[in-house]
Formats: sequence, structure tokens, C-alpha cells
Amino acid sequence: MGRVVTFGEIMMRLSTPDHLRFCQANRFDVSYAGAEANVAVSLSNFQVDSCFVTKLPQNDFGRSVLSYIRQYGVDTKYITFGEGRLGIYFIEVGHSQRPSKVIYDRSHSTFARSDISDFNWEEILSGVDWFHFTGITPALGDNLVEICHKALSTAKQKGVTVSCDLNYRAKLWSEEKARFVMTDLMSYVDVLFANEEDAERVFGIKADDSNVVEGRLSLKGYEQVCRKLKERFDFQSVAISLRESKFANINGWSGVLLHGNEFVNARQYTVHIVDRVGAGDSFAAGLIYAFLQDMSPQDSIEFATAASCLKHTIMGDFNHITVQEVKRLVQGEGSGRVVR
Amino acid sequence: MGRVVTFGEIMMRLSTPDHLRFCQANRFDVSYAGAEANVAVSLSNFQVDSCFVTKLPQNDFGRSVLSYIRQYGVDTKYITFGEGRLGIYFIEVGHSQRPSKVIYDRSHSTFARSDISDFNWEEILSGVDWFHFTGITPALGDNLVEICHKALSTAKQKGVTVSCDLNYRAKLWSEEKARFVMTDLMSYVDVLFANEEDAERVFGIKADDSNVVEGRLSLKGYEQVCRKLKERFDFQSVAISLRESKFANINGWSGVLLHGNEFVNARQYTVHIVDRVGAGDSFAAGLIYAFLQDMSPQDSIEFATAASCLKHTIMGDFNHITVQEVKRLVQGEGSGRVVR
Amino acid sequence: MGRVVTFGEIMMRLSTPDHLRFCQANRFDVSYAGAEANVAVSLSNFQVDSCFVTKLPQNDFGRSVLSYIRQYGVDTKYITFGEGRLGIYFIEVGHSQRPSKVIYDRSHSTFARSDISDFNWEEILSGVDWFHFTGITPALGDNLVEICHKALSTAKQKGVTVSCDLNYRAKLWSEEKARFVMTDLMSYVDVLFANEEDAERVFGIKADDSNVVEGRLSLKGYEQVCRKLKERFDFQSVAISLRESKFANINGWSGVLLHGNEFVNARQYTVHIVDRVGAGDSFAAGLIYAFLQDMSPQDSIEFATAASCLKHTIMGDFNHITVQEVKRLVQGEGSGRVVR
Amino acid sequence: MGRVVTFGEIMMRLSTPDHLRFCQANRFDVSYAGAEANVAVSLSNFQVDSCFVTKLPQNDFGRSVLSYIRQYGVDTKYITFGEGRLGIYFIEVGHSQRPSKVIYDRSHSTFARSDISDFNWEEILSGVDWFHFTGITPALGDNLVEICHKALSTAKQKGVTVSCDLNYRAKLWSEEKARFVMTDLMSYVDVLFANEEDAERVFGIKADDSNVVEGRLSLKGYEQVCRKLKERFDFQSVAISLRESKFANINGWSGVLLHGNEFVNARQYTVHIVDRVGAGDSFAAGLIYAFLQDMSPQDSIEFATAASCLKHTIMGDFNHITVQEVKRLVQGEGSGRVVR
Amino acid sequence: MGRVVTFGEIMMRLSTPDHLRFCQANRFDVSYAGAEANVAVSLSNFQVDSCFVTKLPQNDFGRSVLSYIRQYGVDTKYITFGEGRLGIYFIEVGHSQRPSKVIYDRSHSTFARSDISDFNWEEILSGVDWFHFTGITPALGDNLVEICHKALSTAKQKGVTVSCDLNYRAKLWSEEKARFVMTDLMSYVDVLFANEEDAERVFGIKADDSNVVEGRLSLKGYEQVCRKLKERFDFQSVAISLRESKFANINGWSGVLLHGNEFVNARQYTVHIVDRVGAGDSFAAGLIYAFLQDMSPQDSIEFATAASCLKHTIMGDFNHITVQEVKRLVQGEGSGRVVR
Amino acid sequence: MGRVVTFGEIMMRLSTPDHLRFCQANRFDVSYAGAEANVAVSLSNFQVDSCFVTKLPQNDFGRSVLSYIRQYGVDTKYITFGEGRLGIYFIEVGHSQRPSKVIYDRSHSTFARSDISDFNWEEILSGVDWFHFTGITPALGDNLVEICHKALSTAKQKGVTVSCDLNYRAKLWSEEKARFVMTDLMSYVDVLFANEEDAERVFGIKADDSNVVEGRLSLKGYEQVCRKLKERFDFQSVAISLRESKFANINGWSGVLLHGNEFVNARQYTVHIVDRVGAGDSFAAGLIYAFLQDMSPQDSIEFATAASCLKHTIMGDFNHITVQEVKRLVQGEGSGRVVR
Repeated sequence: MGRVVTFGEIMMRLSTPDHLRFCQANRFDVSYAGAEANVAVSLSNFQVDSCFVTKLPQNDFGRSVLSYIRQYGVDTKYITFGEGRLGIYFIEVGHSQRPSKVIYDRSHSTFARSDISDFNWEEILSGVDWFHFTGITPALGDNLVEICHKALSTAKQKGVTVSCDLNYRAKLWSEEKARFVMTDLMSYVDVLFANEEDAERVFGIKADDSNVVEGRLSLKGYEQVCRKLKERFDFQSVAISLRESKFANINGWSGVLLHGNEFVNARQYTVHIVDRVGAGDSFAAGLIYAFLQDMSPQDSIEFATAASCLKHTIMGDFNHITVQEVKRLVQGEGSGRVVR
Repeated sequence: MGRVVTFGEIMMRLSTPDHLRFCQANRFDVSYAGAEANVAVSLSNFQVDSCFVTKLPQNDFGRSVLSYIRQYGVDTKYITFGEGRLGIYFIEVGHSQRPSKVIYDRSHSTFARSDISDFNWEEILSGVDWFHFTGITPALGDNLVEICHKALSTAKQKGVTVSCDLNYRAKLWSEEKARFVMTDLMSYVDVLFANEEDAERVFGIKADDSNVVEGRLSLKGYEQVCRKLKERFDFQSVAISLRESKFANINGWSGVLLHGNEFVNARQYTVHIVDRVGAGDSFAAGLIYAFLQDMSPQDSIEFATAASCLKHTIMGDFNHITVQEVKRLVQGEGSGRVVR
Repeated sequence: MGRVVTFGEIMMRLSTPDHLRFCQANRFDVSYAGAEANVAVSLSNFQVDSCFVTKLPQNDFGRSVLSYIRQYGVDTKYITFGEGRLGIYFIEVGHSQRPSKVIYDRSHSTFARSDISDFNWEEILSGVDWFHFTGITPALGDNLVEICHKALSTAKQKGVTVSCDLNYRAKLWSEEKARFVMTDLMSYVDVLFANEEDAERVFGIKADDSNVVEGRLSLKGYEQVCRKLKERFDFQSVAISLRESKFANINGWSGVLLHGNEFVNARQYTVHIVDRVGAGDSFAAGLIYAFLQDMSPQDSIEFATAASCLKHTIMGDFNHITVQEVKRLVQGEGSGRVVR
Repeated sequence: MGRVVTFGEIMMRLSTPDHLRFCQANRFDVSYAGAEANVAVSLSNFQVDSCFVTKLPQNDFGRSVLSYIRQYGVDTKYITFGEGRLGIYFIEVGHSQRPSKVIYDRSHSTFARSDISDFNWEEILSGVDWFHFTGITPALGDNLVEICHKALSTAKQKGVTVSCDLNYRAKLWSEEKARFVMTDLMSYVDVLFANEEDAERVFGIKADDSNVVEGRLSLKGYEQVCRKLKERFDFQSVAISLRESKFANINGWSGVLLHGNEFVNARQYTVHIVDRVGAGDSFAAGLIYAFLQDMSPQDSIEFATAASCLKHTIMGDFNHITVQEVKRLVQGEGSGRVVR
Repeated sequence: MGRVVTFGEIMMRLSTPDHLRFCQANRFDVSYAGAEANVAVSLSNFQVDSCFVTKLPQNDFGRSVLSYIRQYGVDTKYITFGEGRLGIYFIEVGHSQRPSKVIYDRSHSTFARSDISDFNWEEILSGVDWFHFTGITPALGDNLVEICHKALSTAKQKGVTVSCDLNYRAKLWSEEKARFVMTDLMSYVDVLFANEEDAERVFGIKADDSNVVEGRLSLKGYEQVCRKLKERFDFQSVAISLRESKFANINGWSGVLLHGNEFVNARQYTVHIVDRVGAGDSFAAGLIYAFLQDMSPQDSIEFATAASCLKHTIMGDFNHITVQEVKRLVQGEGSGRVVR
Repeated sequence: MGRVVTFGEIMMRLSTPDHLRFCQANRFDVSYAGAEANVAVSLSNFQVDSCFVTKLPQNDFGRSVLSYIRQYGVDTKYITFGEGRLGIYFIEVGHSQRPSKVIYDRSHSTFARSDISDFNWEEILSGVDWFHFTGITPALGDNLVEICHKALSTAKQKGVTVSCDLNYRAKLWSEEKARFVMTDLMSYVDVLFANEEDAERVFGIKADDSNVVEGRLSLKGYEQVCRKLKERFDFQSVAISLRESKFANINGWSGVLLHGNEFVNARQYTVHIVDRVGAGDSFAAGLIYAFLQDMSPQDSIEFATAASCLKHTIMGDFNHITVQEVKRLVQGEGSGRVVR
């Protein structure tokens, strides 16, 4: 079915339980997560041969990360270890009008201090069909921009399909810096993923008739965004997840895909949220799976949207969902009747 | 007010906390539950003299079950003990588009291995007004079909009113086997309970204009179902709970009752769900209570529907609700204002 | 910005976790709360210099209360200690049609046994701009009525603005007794706060076209209530919080303000509730803050309503919200998008 | 085997988890306990027909107590309900040199306000073999002294054996008051239980060569105490539990018994403590069981000491131990090897 | 360093938290464990290439087991899936004189229903250095005796070293049946592991001067046991772990080894126990590691004893300890000073 | 009684619950702690006017720290805020032979990046009697060495008594660097605190006849250490806490004091440990309290040793103990009898 490699940082995730605010919490729930690791785990749950590449600190937490990903069947053999700390992100889960709040404490991490010699891309990308990364990786430093170039050019040489999720993070770099670096990297990218905000922030391409803050998004507007992105960078495919925020705990959720010249959109779900972090990653994973399975554009966007809809109902960044469960939702079983 | 005996299996219930999936859980919440025990506890909470009959393993878990039921005032003196294991059911609580999932591990239980000599129905049913069982009990084995026949015929001889909740479980028997056995047992039954799916699966009687999967149910359709069931088996009363699934955590909930020739339906509630397991049992208990109190058909179905509406807001299978609380909801206090 | 003193009882709050009923709980979450303490903490979170005055038992729980309030920066130096017990209130959190239930166990508390000599109002109210109390304080006994008179008359002498939240509690006194006492105390009050029920219960002033039980409230009706209250007691301002109960976990929430002759109302929020206890107190704190900041009437009621809207999303009685977070909601960012 | 009635107060027990101090706890574990209820439950666990008599508040907590005791098979049919509150006791579990700390909040409880008309002793004591109470009951007020007199004199008339555990509580009454009241009640008592301190505090009878604070107790000294008590009050039997405190979590534990003229002592156990509250009650229950079984004095004191040794390893006041488990320890299996 | 295969059943482990008795628990901690899986994980933690072979049910729990073992780096590629249930064992953790209690619910498991065709031993044992199983595996049924024969004879053909841990379980088979089957299987075994009781129960070989119940074990006696076992079955090595039970939470722990003709014993540790289940498995894993490393007999028994000493301090069956940590203890750092 | 200022870093403390290893934990307990903050809180619990000075990040965690310390009554008005992160330390609590393990993640913290302009020592030290810091503070960077010099020289000018706890941390600096910097700072120090290892590591002064690893410490040896330290640096007093590690959960604990020329030692306690982190800080706080109270040398060392003995029984770094509780232990009530 194809082998997928993803590359990026994985952090310790510390979240307050029971919707407590940071100042109220006397315990944190612990897991490990990161955009590209989330994609690898999601694909592994779809029975895809997936491999996650990163660099971890040589301590108990580095080893805990290794175990944590390995349990989901992800290939971890190209993970390297070195000096430094494991990045951390803290999350306080919102509700109703109170937004969730994320505090990053990721500076000086082992991964951010990676060196180009840490990863042997010739070997890593042998026998690989798909390579995925996100805009977070090059945002972590110029060394990582360099490593991305190396990985991407190797992938191109080997005929590996390359996907990228824009994943703009304002805390990591300015829009200007992001635009400069990402424009350059786009030349290697075949398939682009983004959310309802990224294209504007990174490339200045905005959807008409849409207001992200108020949760009103226009399909027409996002079709234009897809077409402009394709035009500018000559992508095979562009997919955008569309979140209409109504409350911190209830969102509209859908997605669009421009494949070649064909534009399709998925049905929209109203999702009651257990945990929305990682939804974009599960959307990307859904599309990668669909493409590897040669689904039609319409089936692909429905699969990815349903997969990521279900992610919202699962605690943690990882999408613990099977292909069968996604297909059940695509086929209309979305009313939550008990499965016995 | 009358004494009620219920008969069936009670299991250990192991549920994942906080909407976790099975693969994520490192602890299970423990309780003990089963359709007929749920009815007995609900009736005891309504101050009805109720007695639960079962067979339990002679070990710590059998004794724990005994304590567990006894605390709610249910008469446990006819419970017998023997070899075997306590059946278990595991539940992972869904949310939004993700359904709850139940895994049964009930084979080889002490109850499933019951022998006809384990229960002295002459004694058990002395001074009793009502006997209740569900379709799960005969589904557990031919020995239990035989025991049901014995119990039901004794009940009939003694003039005890008999109710049955169809409670079809596809994991326990085929629709064909269920139809064969249940058709036979219906001859003893005065009052039949079912949910929106059971009548079709067990007796092939389907509601028009309804789609259970999509959560659209027609009152007209279910009136026909009631009338056909009554016609075929000559019941005194037939009541059906009607669940319109919208999300795993939000359902429409109502009920209909055909009593003699009078068909009535309750108002419909939109329920935000804490735990929906046991709702059907609490609906049956509500109706048994209403009948024992000689409520009118309209009052009866409103009482049962309100009681089981409230069950959805309570963790665990048991309906910890008083008559006064049910009546408060029937009278329209359903907006959840704080009671101080 | 002004210094605020609040005066009243603070209790141990014991709440069942996870929506459990009292009879199901084997643990209680512990915090400390009371209407006037809630206001003081909320103001301190808005960076107002606030001081809470009460009397506590001379034991571990009295000392725990002291620490508990002190951590939020509230001035506790006028708290006195003495014989008696700490009052307790138990809360079982409802859901959907099942209301939350509060059981008070506050009799014989140290505070209820306060003596007029326990508080030196001359000293306490020196350099103070605002004094706040609620109808609960005088409801606790005639000694407290006397103490309130002393505090209020001292405040008047010193030119301190006085606000009162009616906060009628049927378990503490009859409507007749409340009316008698509160009518008397109103002569000292400049700013009155109430909820959608208080004015009718305490002063017999009812809103037309409104049904509190069914959750339908009329702005016109509440404008009349405000105007009648102002007319009768000559208040500077009257503000009423308006809760439209739909479900125990979903409410409509808004507020109205009559300031001088100008009547304004805030937008209405649909709130998905984590914990609604203390919402009225956070509404009062919002208005006190707005008045201390000389906001316009419209800005004031929007600020107070948004602040108390957010309170519903926070566990416990205290409103852990900053001015910046309230303003963000007032400015329309209410769709709960993640803050990174 | 005989029916036993015990009479006294039962309270809500709120304990801090994980050895936290009161000021650190943000949750309390909840159970219900009281000296005489503890004895009733322990006897019921030994399969004795036991009945607990008390008066409870007419609210959720009164009903919760009822369920709580009923689950262990104790007969609750003579429990009455009325006005007032449920007494509470808070416990912070110590460790090493830090003692456990108990704070009582039991004033004004429903039980403390019992009236002599609340209990029909003629009916309660019909067909009963043994009546047990402790010194806590008359310490709660003169009404309870009167009720004790009534109960005890009825017991005597009916030939019921009466046992009393001195259980002196300094917070409830002075040593003088205790001596006065208890001396009077002793005329009805056949079997007296005490711990290493009670006899001195209530009756001024002290053991030579012993230092309770330092944990050095002399068997000779306690033989004298037993003999003096018997001499003064003409008891059939006197039993004293002997705790040698070394650390809050490690104690020596033994017991002595004077039966007729025969003085025996049990082996001493070094107990590693999970929860020592209720150990004295389990010692009393052990002896009552032994006497009902007509064990020899030596067997009786060994049984009671082993039963209460095991109590120290069980969380909560209740001794969840079977006769078989106690006998296993008496026979020497005390090294804690896994039972499979 | 060598590749090790272990073969056996793995179960769901449900344990009561905080030393609660089964009847008190309302939650269970969940993990997955089994003697041979424990050995595989322990070896993997020592960086040995280890592979665990079993058969699991085709459901969420089978998949959870797979993830659970995989996270520790154990090779799971020969695990097969099929019909049936996952065996369960319940554990209540004792303290002081109260023993831990294990209840097995493992009948009818998928593994117990394994067929000889489920495992391709030719393939599984290719390139393998060591094969390990325990007496539990053949105790599960005659089909498993047959499978063991197949596995062991294949191992012998391929020159794989075979070790067996006697692990007698009285609930699974009689001593007679065990002796019959195990005697037969011993012909394939090179290295035998046992605890202080097994040899007597399975082979009737008893240590002089020892009393297991009272926790007094004689080194001389166990040297004889080793020598007799070696004589009878011609083992290369025999190792016995020696537990002197003093309290459920404090044990003496040591081990002896007869290697060729050289008898050695390890120092004895007094262990304060967090969880002792799996200690024997960690002892076996320690010795396998030592043998693979060609340690001397004295170093081997010290390594195994230290490794399994540390196991007692770790929650769960698995020994999460590194080689470096074991060696630190062997070298005398056993006083528990903080490692910063 | 005197005012005390302490100066140093405070971190987030994340500890695994229930003795879990880092790799097993899925939640961490959260608190905030640091050597000098621990001293300030301990003193405040003794009713000393204490003030803690540090620099915190301008985010939710900085604000949480502020609340956290403030609740214990510590004066926080000189705490400054700025860029950077909050340092973190992770702790896995050991047992028996398994040591506790601490992982620091404190680089790049706001405090470590403090500038000399952040603290106005003239103002901070006005009206202060005692200034305390530890060797950790200057170990964090040359900027902090400079700040310490400024603080200490200001203290000397103002006649403030200065104490220092050596607190050597090998992860922060080499022994050579520590010796160089600390030798210099000692010229300002009046009272020196150390543990059984610090003097050797920092100043090369070793106790004869002692083996820290094996937990054998000689009073004579430590008297020499005290005298040599005094001789070299001309301290008023030198106090050393003496820990004899036996198991991770059981230690011997005592202390010695050289005051002027008088050498005294405290009784030794065997402590069963709940949490030993912060014990040295509570020892220092005990001595500062004793000196401020002008206790005799013998009383001082007994008070400090008893206070820090009790710390071992309390979860977290802070010593939640009153003067009365310490004195109770000094007077010999150390056997852990329940306080009612």
C-alpha cells in the first residue's frame, strides 16, 4: 500500500484535566505529540507502513517518546538521540466562549538543535512512497530549513511524493520569514494541506466572503484559494480543512480538495469536541491514505473529513480510528448509536 | 403497592473514563449491571418492594454483586451461588459522531450455566404481583429457555402479571432463533416493552416512515407496530421507547404506549447524555411503577419517558431517581435550574 | 483604581465529581466559596485592590480558607477567628433535564455566630471606595443584621459607595422576613444587583411576560423591574442578570442595567456550562469593576455579562478570568478558537 | 448464631488522600462510619445477624448512609429519620512521626437531637442476643444518656447480653462527666471493652509500668486494670486492646481478656498500617463473635486480636474480613504470601 | 547479544488501587501481563532482541495487548489472532498480615484454545539463541502440551538453548498432572528456574530446614534441591529465587544458582514492596541476560537477584529497569539516595 | 520576631504519582518549589514574616507561582517578571532499593537570565533581619554570582544576618567552579548550612569514619567538618543535616550544630518517607527560626531536626508544619498516636 515517512518535532504534551485553567491545575495529563508524529500514528492506525523521523534527548523522556510512538506500530528506527531537552507544550482545554489555550515551551529542544548530519536521507527515503512534513519544522531554525532542503531534494530524486501542511505558527516565526522560506520549499511539494487561515498568513492568499473569527467560511472563497495556490506553485493537489468555530466545544468541520483541475468538497459535520488538537494532522493523514488507495477526489475528501471529524471525539493528539470506522461515518452512520 | 420480581443476569461493567477509547484506558470504572437488575433497582428507588433473582459465582465478585444491589434496598434473598465466572461487559463511551462501543465477555458465566433446580419459583413468586424478564435471559442458552418457561408458567398459575422487554442482542442469538423462542414465550406475557428496533428484528414488524440509523422515527409507524404486536400476541399493553439518535451525546427521547385500545405518546425530550446505558430498563421500570399505581395511560407513558429521560443524565446503568424527581419533570420543570 | 471591601460568609464547598449524584459519590472535590468572597476574588483577578472580611473558625479549615483566598491576592487582614465550625455546602452537578442540587450545612458556623465587636468598621472602611454585601449575610441571624447596619452606616458616613446583591435564599429566611430586613437596609444601598427571581421574591416586584421556570424572560419586563426598584429605593443603579434555563448544562445568559435613567441591556450568550455556581457574583464583580473604571452604561453591562458568561466555563465558584479575556469576548471573539 | 443490635451515631467520614494534610487537600474520600456501625458491619461480615440502630437526617446523606450500611447486610429497619444534619468527621492520615489528625464536626446532628420516643426498644430488642454500645453515645447529650438507660434496662429485662466499649472522647465530655455517667451505666454491662487509655481516663484505673505515649505497655499492668474493673463493676468479661505506637504507620497490636477469673493475652502483631481508624471496633466485634461462638478465652482473644490486626490493613472504618481470613491468621499465616 | 523467544499467555491485569479490597473497589487499574511476556519485556529493557509469541483475540483488547508489548520494543511479529476472549486476572494488593489475592478468569481464552497450526516454529525459531517458557503454558490444556513439544523439539534441532520456569499454578492443574507433563518436557530443557515452592510441588523435591509459610529458608536445603533437580533431569543450570515472606509489604529476597557443579548464592535484600507480581519472571530474565553475556555464576546470580529485587519497587508485572540500574545495585548502591 | 528574605529560583515540580517510573506515568502532579522558596514558606508556617525574591516569566505559570507562594502568607512584593520560561524539575519517587530520580529542565529560565537591575536590594533589605540563599543561586550563571555579591554586600552594610545552604548541584557546575565562587561568597556568610556531602564536594572537607553511600555517618567526623569550616571561613554557626540512607523510603535523620565553640547534636529519627525533597530546606528554616527565637544551641538543633523530620512525612517540597507540632515532637511525642 506504500510506505510513508514523516519528519518533525515531537513534544511532551501536558494538559489540565476537566477543563481546569492552568492556575487551577494540580495535575497534568501527560502524552507526547507533534504534527508529523500525529500523521504517522494516524496512518499506522490505517495499517499504512509509516515511519517517523526526529531527534530526541538521550534521557528518560526521549526514551518514553520512543515507546509511546512505537506502541502504535510506527517505525522508529531512524530516530536519533542527542543533547538537549524535550520540547513541551501545555494545554488548557476551553469550553463554550472560553478558548483553549496553548503555551509552548519548546526552545532549545534536541530537535531544534538537529544537525544536517543527524539524518541519512538516502537511507531513510529508500523504498519510500510518500514524505510528509509541516511548516513547523523549518520554522524551528535555519538548520532545519537546511535539513528540509536536503530531505526534500533527496525525495525528489527518488521519486517520492512530497506533501506539506502549512501549519503556520506565529510564535515561531513572522509571516514574512515564513513566506520567504516556505515559498522556496514549495518547489518540492506535490500535495499541499492547509487550514482555513494558513494560506492567507503564509502566502497572503485570502478566501472571499469568509470570516474565520466569526466562524463563517465560503466554499467559493476556498475554491479560489486552492486554485491560486495551485497556480502559483503548480501542486498536484491542494486540500484545506474548514473549521467554523461556534463554541470552544462545538465546531463546524469540513474540507475541500482541488485535485488536478477537479474541485470537491466534503459534507460538513457539527462536531461536539472532546479534543480538537491534532485534527488538521488527522485530515492530512486521511488524504494521504486516500491517495495511496487511489480513491476518487470526492471519496478522498469525504474520507479525510470523516477521519478528522472523529479525531475531535478522541482525547490526545493521536487519531485512534480504524479505516472501517471512518468508512462507517462516510456511509452515513454518524448518529452515534451504540455499537454492541 | 405490589411486589415485583425480576430475573436475569447481572455482570461486571467495566467502562473507560473520560471518553477514552479502549486502547487508551489504563483504568476502568467498575460497577455491576444487567437489564433485569436495573429494573429492580429503579423500582426500589421508587419505593416499590422489588426482588432480583439470579445466580452468582461463589467468589469475591459474586459477593460484591450482592452488596452492590442490596445497598439499593432490593431483596436479594433468592439469589443462588455456584460455579463459574461473573460475566463482564466493557464499555467505551462515545461522543458526537463516535458511537459508544460495548464488548461482551459473558460466556461461561455462572448464570448462563444455571440449572432448573437453582430457582424455586413456587416460593419466589408467592405474594408477588409482577414478574419481569427480558429477551436476554432466554438468549443465554436452552437451559435458560427452560427456566423461563418454568418461571412464566408458575407466574401465570399464580395470577402474577408478566412483562417482557424484547431487548434483542445480535451477539447472543440469531434473529431466527430469537423469533422462534420469543414467539413461544409471548403466550405468557401481559405487557411488552421494546425499543425502536426490537420488534422488527425479533418479529419482523417494522415501523413505516422511520429510519433508525438516521434518527427519524414516525409516531404513526410505531402505533402500527404496537397494534400489530398486540394483535399477534394479545398483550394487555405494549410500550416502545423511541430514541432519535443525533449525536452519541445528544438524542431525542420519547415513548409510546398502547394500552387496551388506547394509543398515547409522551412528549419528546432532547437529552444531553451522561450515560445512556440502562435507559430502556428505566423506561420499563417507569411503566411498571405507573401500572402498579394505576396511572392513566397518558400519565403512565409520561412518567416512564420522564424517568428514563433522567436516566440519561446519570452515570452507570442504574436510575438513581425518585418518584418526586420524575414528577417534577413531568410537570414541566425540565430546564435544569439549581435546586437549593 | 479604588479599593473594594466585601463582607460575608465563606464555606467549604464539597462537590461530587463527574456529574455523580450524592448517593453515588465516594469522593468530593473541595474548595472554599461564598458570594462575597467570590466577588472579592473576581475583582482581585481584575487587578482591583480588594479585601474580604469574614469570621473563621480557629482550626485547620479556617486556616485553609485564609490560604485559599490569599493566593488570589485578596487582602485578608481584617478576617477574625473564633469558636464554631466552618459552614459547608454540598453540590451535585446536574445535566440536561436533571438540575444541580445544593445542600447547605451552614448552621452554627463561626460567621453566623459573629458578634458586633468582631469587626472594627471604622478601620476596615478607611480609604475604601466601595463596600459590597449580599442578602445572604443579614439572612444568617439578627446579630448579622445588626452588624450590617453598623457596616453600612459607617460606609455612608465615609462616603463609600455601597452595593448589594439581593441573593434571596429560601432556606435561610422567609420572603416576609427578607422583605422586612432588606427594605430597611436598602436605604444605605447605592447599587443593587439581582437575578431574574430575586426582586419578586424579596420585594414582590415581578417582570411581565416572563416565565423563569420555562426560561423565557422579557427585556421589557425587566426594565420595569429595574425602574420600580429604583423608584422605591432611589438607587443610583440597578442591574439584573438574566438566565434563561434550557438545560442544566446550556443556558441563555444576559443582563440589564438601569443607570440613572438610562436602561441598557447586553447581548445574550448561549453558555455551555462547566460550573454555573458563582455566576451572579461574577456579574456583580464585573459591574463594580466597570463602575470603578467609569465605563459607560452600555460598556458596563457588556463587560459584566461577558465576565459572568466566562465564569460558566470555569470550575468552582471563583471567576479566574482577566480583564483582557473579558474584553476579548466583549469585542466578539466568542467562538472559542484556540489561543496559541 | 445469635442476633446483635448496636446503637450509636454514624457520621460522614471525609479523609484526605495520599497522606495529604488538610491544608493541601483538594479532594476528600467519602465514606460513612461510627463506632457502633463499625461493629455491626464487622459482625455482618462474620455472617452474624446484626442490626444497627440510629437516627439519620431526612436528606440525601441520610439516605446514603442507609444504602452504605445496607450493602454489607446489616439490618437497618429500626433506623429512624428526622430533622438536623449528619455529623461529619474529617481525617488527615499521618505517617512516621506525624500523627493522624481527626477533626469532628458532629454538633447539632440528627442523632444528637434524638428523642426517647424515636426508638421502641421493646420491639428492637425482641429476639436479640446481644446489645452493644460505646461511651460515645451517652457523651452526645443528656437525652442520649436517658435513651441509653431505656435501652439498657430493656435489654436487662429481656436477658440480652450487654457490651460497652468505653471509647472516651475528650472533645465530647470531661473525664468527670464521663465518670459520673458511665459509672451509672456500667450496672447494666456484662462485657466491657477498652483501649490502653480509656480505663484511666474514665475510671482513673491505670496500668503500672506502662507509658502509652512512648508505646511501652505492660501485660501485668493491664491484667491489674482488668481485675480492678471487674471488681468494681462485676463484669463477666473485660477485654482491652493494646496498641504500642512506634510510628504513625507501624504499631504493635495485641489484646488481653479477663473472662471470669481467667486472664489471657494474645500474641502481639507488628502492623504496617493502611488505616487504623475502627481497629478498636473490630476488636470488639471479634470478641462478640467469639463469645457468640463459645470460643475459649484464649481462642477468643486470639480471634479478636487477629481480626483487628487485619483491620489495620483495610481502608476505611469497616473491617472487610471474613471469619476464614481471621482464622488463617490465627493459625499463623501472617507473612502475607500471595493467595492465588 | 543473542535473540530470545518466549511463548505463553498474556492476560488483562485488573488491580484494585490503594490497597483496596475487591469489595471496596470502584475502579481497576488496567495493564496486560503474563509470565513469558514479562520475561520478554524485561529482556528488551536490557537491550536484548526479544520476541514474544502468543495468540490473541481479534478485538480491541487483543490489539491493545499488541500495542502494550510493542511499546517496550518486543518483537511481536509472530503473534497470531483468533476467536475467543482475552484471559483476565484480578489482583487485590495486600499489606502487612493481609496477603495479596489473585483471582484468575482465564478459561476459554484465545490462547488456551490455540491450535498446533497457529505457530510456525521453524520460522519463529530461525536465528534464535534462547527459547523460554513456563509451566503455565502446558497447564492450559493438552493442545498446549502438544504445541510445547513441537516448539521444544524444533528448538533442540536448531540448537536453541531452552529455559523453563516451573511456575506451578494449583488452579490450573493438579500436582500429579503437572509432574507427569513437566517430567516429559524437562528432557528438552537446559536451564531451569523455580521459586522456593515449585520444586516440591511439581517434582516432590523439598528443601530441608525451610518453612515457606513462616518465611525461613535454608541455603543448604536449596543447594540440595538444585543438585537433585540437576541429577534427575541433567540440566546445565538450575536457579531458584528465595522469598522469605515477613509481611505482605516486606520480604527477604535472594536467589541461588547451580551452574555445572558450581553452587552460588546472591546477597539477600530486604525489599519494601510496591508490587511483587512478576518478580520471578524478572529473576529469570536477569539470568538469561547474564548467561547471554557470559557472566560468571556469581555475577549471574547477583545480577538476577538485584534485577528482581528492583522489580518489587515497580508497579505492574513488567520490570522497567536498565542494565545500568541493576549493576548500580549489584555494586552496592542500594540505600536509595536520590539520583539527580 | 524578625523579617527574613530569601532569594533564589522557583521551578515547576512535576512528579509521578504512586511511585511510578517516568516511562509509566500518564499524569504528573504539579506544584512549584525551590530551595529558597521552601525556606520562606516554612518560616511563614512558623509565623515568621518572610519574603521571597525571585524573577518569574510573564505568563500563566509565572502568575501561578505567585499565587502558589502567596497562599502561605509569604511576602511576594519584590518578585519581578520578565521574558523566558519557568524552570521545571521532574521527580520519580523511588522505594526500597530504587532511588528517587530527579531530572532538571531549568536552562534558559527567566530567573537564570536575571539582570542586576532586576532587584533593588537597598529597598528589599530595608528592615530585614536575616537574608538566606543557597549555592544553587550562584550556580545558575555569572550574572547570578554578580547579583549575589550585590545582595550580600548590601546585607552586610545593613547589618542583616546572612545564611547560606551549600546545596551543591553537580548538574549545574563543577566542584572547581563551585569552590572558586563559593569561597568568595563565604566572606559575607554568618551561618552555614550543609548536608552530609556538600562540604566535601564544595570545599574538600570530609568527615572521617563516614560512608555516605552506605548510610554510616560519624558524629565525630562531622564535628571536625563543622570546626574546619568555621576555622576557614569564620562563621558564627555551622549546621549539618545528617541523612543515613537505608532504603529510599526509610532513612536515619539527624543534625549537628557548631555555634560559637559549642558543638551539639540532635537525637536521630528513623523516618518513613512520604517525600524527602525539601528536607534540607526545612532544616535550614528550623534553625533560622530557632536563632530568631534565641533558642539555645541544643534546643535549636533539636527544633530544626524535628521540623525537618516531619517534612519527610509531607508531600511536596514545602513543610506544612506548625511550631506547636514541631515542639510536640521535640518533647517526645513521636509515636504517631492519633490526634483527635
